[in-house]
Amino acid sequence: MVRNSLPYNPATESFFMTTNPLPTIVTLDLEGVFTPEIWHAVAEETNIPALRLTTRDEPDYDKLMKYRINILQDNNLSLRNIQDVIASMALLPGARAFLDWLRCQTQAIILSDTFYEFAAPFMQKLGEPTLFCNMLQVNDRDMIVDYHLRIDDGKREAVMALKRINFRVIAAGDSYNDTTMLAAADHGILFRPPQNVIDDFPQFPVTSEYDELKELFTELLNG
Amino acid sequence: MVRNSLPYNPATESFFMTTNPLPTIVTLDLEGVFTPEIWHAVAEETNIPALRLTTRDEPDYDKLMKYRINILQDNNLSLRNIQDVIASMALLPGARAFLDWLRCQTQAIILSDTFYEFAAPFMQKLGEPTLFCNMLQVNDRDMIVDYHLRIDDGKREAVMALKRINFRVIAAGDSYNDTTMLAAADHGILFRPPQNVIDDFPQFPVTSEYDELKELFTELLNG
Repeated sequence: MVRNSLPYNPATESFFMTTNPLPTIVTLDLEGVFTPEIWHAVAEETNIPALRLTTRDEPDYDKLMKYRINILQDNNLSLRNIQDVIASMALLPGARAFLDWLRCQTQAIILSDTFYEFAAPFMQKLGEPTLFCNMLQVNDRDMIVDYHLRIDDGKREAVMALKRINFRVIAAGDSYNDTTMLAAADHGILFRPPQNVIDDFPQFPVTSEYDELKELFTELLNG
Repeated sequence: MVRNSLPYNPATESFFMTTNPLPTIVTLDLEGVFTPEIWHAVAEETNIPALRLTTRDEPDYDKLMKYRINILQDNNLSLRNIQDVIASMALLPGARAFLDWLRCQTQAIILSDTFYEFAAPFMQKLGEPTLFCNMLQVNDRDMIVDYHLRIDDGKREAVMALKRINFRVIAAGDSYNDTTMLAAADHGILFRPPQNVIDDFPQFPVTSEYDELKELFTELLNG
């Protein structure tokens, strides 16, 4: 009854709607692909330049997050304050139309290192796509007191989990923290990456416009 | 840095937005929960009562599918013909509003034993939620010649995959083929099940209206 390990049979190629008998899920990063960088915008809106620090400045993510949480507390900025800033941010131009197109072609899941509490306003603007990310911890005065990463290397683990239940995965992202996801996928694509990521990962095709991504996805989806 | 095996700490309960530090994904069956049974409708629309047969009549799913595919071929019914029938079907009353509500509360993924080619018109009506299901094999005359189950016990395997990447899973479905998914989830809920399923699985709460499901989800999401 079950053919979960069915190898691709070239002899029957013409009978498949795609050349691959496994259905495809596209996984995509959030910030840099659909939205601006959240912390950058928060830094600007709140006039606290220290919040601009990223993992490029402080590679230890836990130190970076604790530092950010301390700054928010020192400035008496609640989760609601941050959410208000995020709700005022626009998607990248063309992001919604691109995702709408993609979701009509195949399944799409957004994989992000951000937090559901931050992402919610963006998800509404994107038409409530499925998002795998993390949770903040907030106290009874609505102050962020901690954060919880669901799992180490969460984007890569999600891709592996989808592959283990026999999906073909195409992944797209913009930065270093996407490269393990891109490598784990059947096909990895860079979208608007910085030059050092292009240099360090020459194996991934580079795209800079949604139309290029569309073309590449269409090619991969139609074999 | 990472707390993927962090046990729930009752001492900090009041600091969590939910009482559980793991984010929740709700997995839901498609037919019977959001849509009518697809093969029933096809049988009716095509005036071929033999297509009404279900796994209750023929428990061997492979035999049943081969039998259905043969009938479609004998009656010269193409994939497009079936898709036209499905496109004419309405969602169950209230289905879209319920799913819209749910997707604003938490992540939701539809798990189904059906095929992407059949489900597409329903997915459009439901606002393109994420769907994990299977693929048909169609020849160059658009006739269905075979089907491919992605994996054995696909709904249960999907729940297990989500739990392995540290999601809490709440599952809802209506029939026997949902019960392994319900058992694998952290919380399983029956929605409009037949009496024999109620009798055989007394461990799962039974709901019959979307409002009841909403109440139960709200309770579970808020701890």
